[in-house]
Amino acid sequence: MRVGVLTGGGDCPGLNAVIRGIVRKGVQEYGYDFVGFRDGWRGPLDGDVTRLDIPAVRGILPRGGTILGSSRTNPFQHEGGITRIKENLAKQEVEALVVIGGEDTLGVAARLSDDYGVPCVGVPKTIDNDLSATDYTFGFDTAVGIATEAIDRLHTTAESHMRVLVVEVMGRHTGWIALHSGLAGGANVILIPEQRFDVDQVCAWVTSRFKASYAPIVVVAEGAVPKDGDMVLKDETLDSYGHVRLSGVGEWLAKEIERRTGKEARTTVLGHVQRGGTPSAFDRWLATRFGLHAVDCVRDGDFGTMVALRGTHIVRVPIAEATARLKTVDPALYEEVEVFFG
Amino acid sequence: MRVGVLTGGGDCPGLNAVIRGIVRKGVQEYGYDFVGFRDGWRGPLDGDVTRLDIPAVRGILPRGGTILGSSRTNPFQHEGGITRIKENLAKQEVEALVVIGGEDTLGVAARLSDDYGVPCVGVPKTIDNDLSATDYTFGFDTAVGIATEAIDRLHTTAESHMRVLVVEVMGRHTGWIALHSGLAGGANVILIPEQRFDVDQVCAWVTSRFKASYAPIVVVAEGAVPKDGDMVLKDETLDSYGHVRLSGVGEWLAKEIERRTGKEARTTVLGHVQRGGTPSAFDRWLATRFGLHAVDCVRDGDFGTMVALRGTHIVRVPIAEATARLKTVDPALYEEVEVFFG
Amino acid sequence: MRVGVLTGGGDCPGLNAVIRGIVRKGVQEYGYDFVGFRDGWRGPLDGDVTRLDIPAVRGILPRGGTILGSSRTNPFQHEGGITRIKENLAKQEVEALVVIGGEDTLGVAARLSDDYGVPCVGVPKTIDNDLSATDYTFGFDTAVGIATEAIDRLHTTAESHMRVLVVEVMGRHTGWIALHSGLAGGANVILIPEQRFDVDQVCAWVTSRFKASYAPIVVVAEGAVPKDGDMVLKDETLDSYGHVRLSGVGEWLAKEIERRTGKEARTTVLGHVQRGGTPSAFDRWLATRFGLHAVDCVRDGDFGTMVALRGTHIVRVPIAEATARLKTVDPALYEEVEVFFG
Amino acid sequence: MRVGVLTGGGDCPGLNAVIRGIVRKGVQEYGYDFVGFRDGWRGPLDGDVTRLDIPAVRGILPRGGTILGSSRTNPFQHEGGITRIKENLAKQEVEALVVIGGEDTLGVAARLSDDYGVPCVGVPKTIDNDLSATDYTFGFDTAVGIATEAIDRLHTTAESHMRVLVVEVMGRHTGWIALHSGLAGGANVILIPEQRFDVDQVCAWVTSRFKASYAPIVVVAEGAVPKDGDMVLKDETLDSYGHVRLSGVGEWLAKEIERRTGKEARTTVLGHVQRGGTPSAFDRWLATRFGLHAVDCVRDGDFGTMVALRGTHIVRVPIAEATARLKTVDPALYEEVEVFFG
Repeated sequence: MRVGVLTGGGDCPGLNAVIRGIVRKGVQEYGYDFVGFRDGWRGPLDGDVTRLDIPAVRGILPRGGTILGSSRTNPFQHEGGITRIKENLAKQEVEALVVIGGEDTLGVAARLSDDYGVPCVGVPKTIDNDLSATDYTFGFDTAVGIATEAIDRLHTTAESHMRVLVVEVMGRHTGWIALHSGLAGGANVILIPEQRFDVDQVCAWVTSRFKASYAPIVVVAEGAVPKDGDMVLKDETLDSYGHVRLSGVGEWLAKEIERRTGKEARTTVLGHVQRGGTPSAFDRWLATRFGLHAVDCVRDGDFGTMVALRGTHIVRVPIAEATARLKTVDPALYEEVEVFFG
Repeated sequence: MRVGVLTGGGDCPGLNAVIRGIVRKGVQEYGYDFVGFRDGWRGPLDGDVTRLDIPAVRGILPRGGTILGSSRTNPFQHEGGITRIKENLAKQEVEALVVIGGEDTLGVAARLSDDYGVPCVGVPKTIDNDLSATDYTFGFDTAVGIATEAIDRLHTTAESHMRVLVVEVMGRHTGWIALHSGLAGGANVILIPEQRFDVDQVCAWVTSRFKASYAPIVVVAEGAVPKDGDMVLKDETLDSYGHVRLSGVGEWLAKEIERRTGKEARTTVLGHVQRGGTPSAFDRWLATRFGLHAVDCVRDGDFGTMVALRGTHIVRVPIAEATARLKTVDPALYEEVEVFFG
Repeated sequence: MRVGVLTGGGDCPGLNAVIRGIVRKGVQEYGYDFVGFRDGWRGPLDGDVTRLDIPAVRGILPRGGTILGSSRTNPFQHEGGITRIKENLAKQEVEALVVIGGEDTLGVAARLSDDYGVPCVGVPKTIDNDLSATDYTFGFDTAVGIATEAIDRLHTTAESHMRVLVVEVMGRHTGWIALHSGLAGGANVILIPEQRFDVDQVCAWVTSRFKASYAPIVVVAEGAVPKDGDMVLKDETLDSYGHVRLSGVGEWLAKEIERRTGKEARTTVLGHVQRGGTPSAFDRWLATRFGLHAVDCVRDGDFGTMVALRGTHIVRVPIAEATARLKTVDPALYEEVEVFFG
Repeated sequence: MRVGVLTGGGDCPGLNAVIRGIVRKGVQEYGYDFVGFRDGWRGPLDGDVTRLDIPAVRGILPRGGTILGSSRTNPFQHEGGITRIKENLAKQEVEALVVIGGEDTLGVAARLSDDYGVPCVGVPKTIDNDLSATDYTFGFDTAVGIATEAIDRLHTTAESHMRVLVVEVMGRHTGWIALHSGLAGGANVILIPEQRFDVDQVCAWVTSRFKASYAPIVVVAEGAVPKDGDMVLKDETLDSYGHVRLSGVGEWLAKEIERRTGKEARTTVLGHVQRGGTPSAFDRWLATRFGLHAVDCVRDGDFGTMVALRGTHIVRVPIAEATARLKTVDPALYEEVEVFFG
């Protein structure tokens, strides 16, 4: 049996660990043959394949990125895209596809599997951890670790100087990275996309922090937006969710804090540093196990399903259902963390 | 209301995060007063207390160790120990105790709470992750991360030289650290206490690895023991579980591999490095949330219970039940990982 | 003999290591007594002192920041400032001062020592490594390490995606951090304040890089400025050196690259992360030895001098001379590194 | 012109950075052609070559190990070895050799260059930093960093428990790694091969440390040996330098401390972890510059010379002279550090 593998969407530490898990188990235990499709859905669309055997996955476990390349190509937006995919799979004699990706990439897999008879197994991938069907996605722990280490370093600067330090972390639509790294780093304010923030409240926390001890650290998710009255910036726009989007909310917030409190504020923008480099041990464990279980789904002919983490167990859920809803930060959890603000 | 806090047993990254979580929420939200007892159960036994207020917990989140000190003191082994504890709690006007510790420390809490009317709430602590009531214990992720980073570094040496590299990691009775770090580090052999290992099988994996690519890395838990026929070492003894204990199984195994395969073997013994230093972001998150929920148990008068992790939720379980059974590595999970051996 | 110690100017990993070295050797070997002045020159100006004995320096070696606090206070800008300092030193019975700081802080020490008879010994401190009298200053190695690790992580993202990644690092007037981290991180373009950059040349390197392999990484010092024709940004101003200052040259450059090449570009701004947190082993070694030798200068009555690194030796130089000239990146060294551009 | 490159001796982070520096500059600036010889001197002996062009050195900068492989082969110990080397160089049309290695590997280069007319340029490599001609060798800073991080982590365990922690680090003949990491890590005792240690003195420091604060950390170089009266171990032997060699001095010392002081002692043996993995930023900088300057030596026809670091400059020295003498720790430097003992 020949199985195809592809990775789609944004970069995420652990992608290579999934691929290695799939290939090692598939070849050694089930005698499968593998074909890697390049650059997400572009691969099966263009018939662009690469060798994927045991030597090809040697040494890739600790490496970030993906040896298969990635893209945001959506075959449903290509005239005759589905037909071309089916032809290319047939030409390569591929009988099943393991699709590793986020909402968009897996959404294609769900439709192909459910509506077009292309046997797909999904592996969830989002650095933002915002998929409701799984406790965690790989890459998230790595991103949180990098952001936490940065916040740790800022504490000594905060101790020595009287400056507000603003850290902008990833998270367009959800605040998981901000919440986890902010809590783990001992931030004094954490702002997430799920709840519009009030700049005056932020300034109140900042001011009270200066009184209690040393300088405050403010962690803000890139997708966090201020309340209406606070939108004084010119370059705001609406994003695809209808949210107000600020380009560089970290810089903007730092300037607002300076203006309103009279305290100097400095910004750190971690950017892509959070999604590159070697995965954490947790992410390697999770990604590897996702790979091992995904190939078991193939063996069981259990298509249209996705692997997911529940507690310490890997379970299977329908892809379509799994990608239907964004997992946002529960207000109760945010409130739990607020005890550390100010 | 005044609440006492103590930490018992071995060192574990995250202890301070728990203490901080308890105190921040207890003081700010419930208006509690706290007293820290020094050195585990020795504190209440001797009436040895320390200040535990908001300033006392400032800056301790990223620090390993415990600001309260620790010990393995068991008050049940002290004549009149329980009476002394009750007197000292009364003298300090302490109405509830939060007890952070492993099997032994929590075992005392369970008996005190269930049989002697001392209101205790438990927080589980074991770097070995071997408590059945909770998905994970804090400190474990940090230990796995440190061991994984060490294994990562050995790979380049393994690539350049023709030597077997043996890494001894923590784990007296269970192989969780060995299993997770061995998988995450891409080890070629992982040996755990739950399954006696066959030195000849280890040598076979070692030999096949040399043929397939470069030098093998063998991860061995400190409590792993060879099969009967392999016990050629003089200094073995039986431990309290009736297991054969080898002092320095890593060194012993390296010598056996050299003797049987003719290949040079070198050993790394990480030792206490694995349980010291700053906790990982995951462990800080888990430990902090354990602290926040433990103080909620106090508020609810829910004594004799212990906080535990289930998926992403913090739940409550009876201490007595939680500490009754060791969580060992499931043979099916070990088998899942064996695909990477050799 | 009683000796005063103060730290002035910006934050820098290693300050505490210097203080510890001074106190340990001074107390144990020479029987000195120490007084810490708070917040740089503000301390002696206001007579604000803190205990500085062996217990006070315990455990501070690995900690960033400074236990003495810091400021940019210049006593020469205070009416009667020098008289007040001399009075406060007399009141505290302080017979010598060890002054740890950069150009400004040490400049005060030089004048006090040379012109006003206040016996000062200097320890150089600048994260930017731009002091001509010493091979390296402590803090620099830590900053380079942090920036290099960030660049390392960006490589996997660069491999997987077709984006230009711009990293803005510290360096107002000199490009040492940019040059060292850019070289160590394998950057494809490095821009420093010493040489105005040509955006079209940057875009040519970026474009050629895309052809040769994967996406380019551009490291830019915060003080780097484009050539005249490239100054299209509105918020430029002249800094105190007469240079054109762009607020956020990283963001600006990313936008220019996007505009001119049509490639997406993303920015990382490390900011204060580079000067916080635990010092590297190299910086701890250097800072500790600076401290040990500074107290030897006091013992020898060698005032008006500063400790400096030459090769592996600690030497003494006149403070006034040492702070007279900025150590900029030698054009020949920059040229040496240019072989890796594009 | 065609140039050969080889790496010999033990593993060392930075080898790949040297190779990359040589090839990038040689190809791009001088138009040279390169041939890599495999596994040190075995390569030219057996005519075993590998491609060494720009694509071959892409991405190797941050990787430990050496893409050329290594060995301890000495052609002078092979019948007709030199003739075979000259024939193989002629066959490959190699007109110059860049030899990266330690004392032994470079010793061969010196003789080949000086006595047999084989044009060699040397690049010094020893993780132990024990070469007198250069301020530092690459790999050393990485090893010190790894050992320091391990010692850092032990401090929190030392704070919480009453145990002596012994850390065995690399250093057969010299104590540079022990001295630098011990100082940077804040160890309480540092033992080096250059000075026989007195176990009673060690125990006195250990005991006084327990009184002053928390548990002591003892750093011991693997080649450190006790004074005569202390040699109670059975498995000691003389090494090739006539020193008493203890297998596992760390374990031995821990047991002796336990026996003499009654305190529990635990050992960490870092082993090969210290010489694997990604090089530090400092080592990448140094190694890259060594590579750039080595190829300049080739261009200048400056054979029989070796590149070396003096301050911040790369200089050239005769190989033969450079490898003649071991750089041991100066007793005055050791005494400087002793202020931190106990």
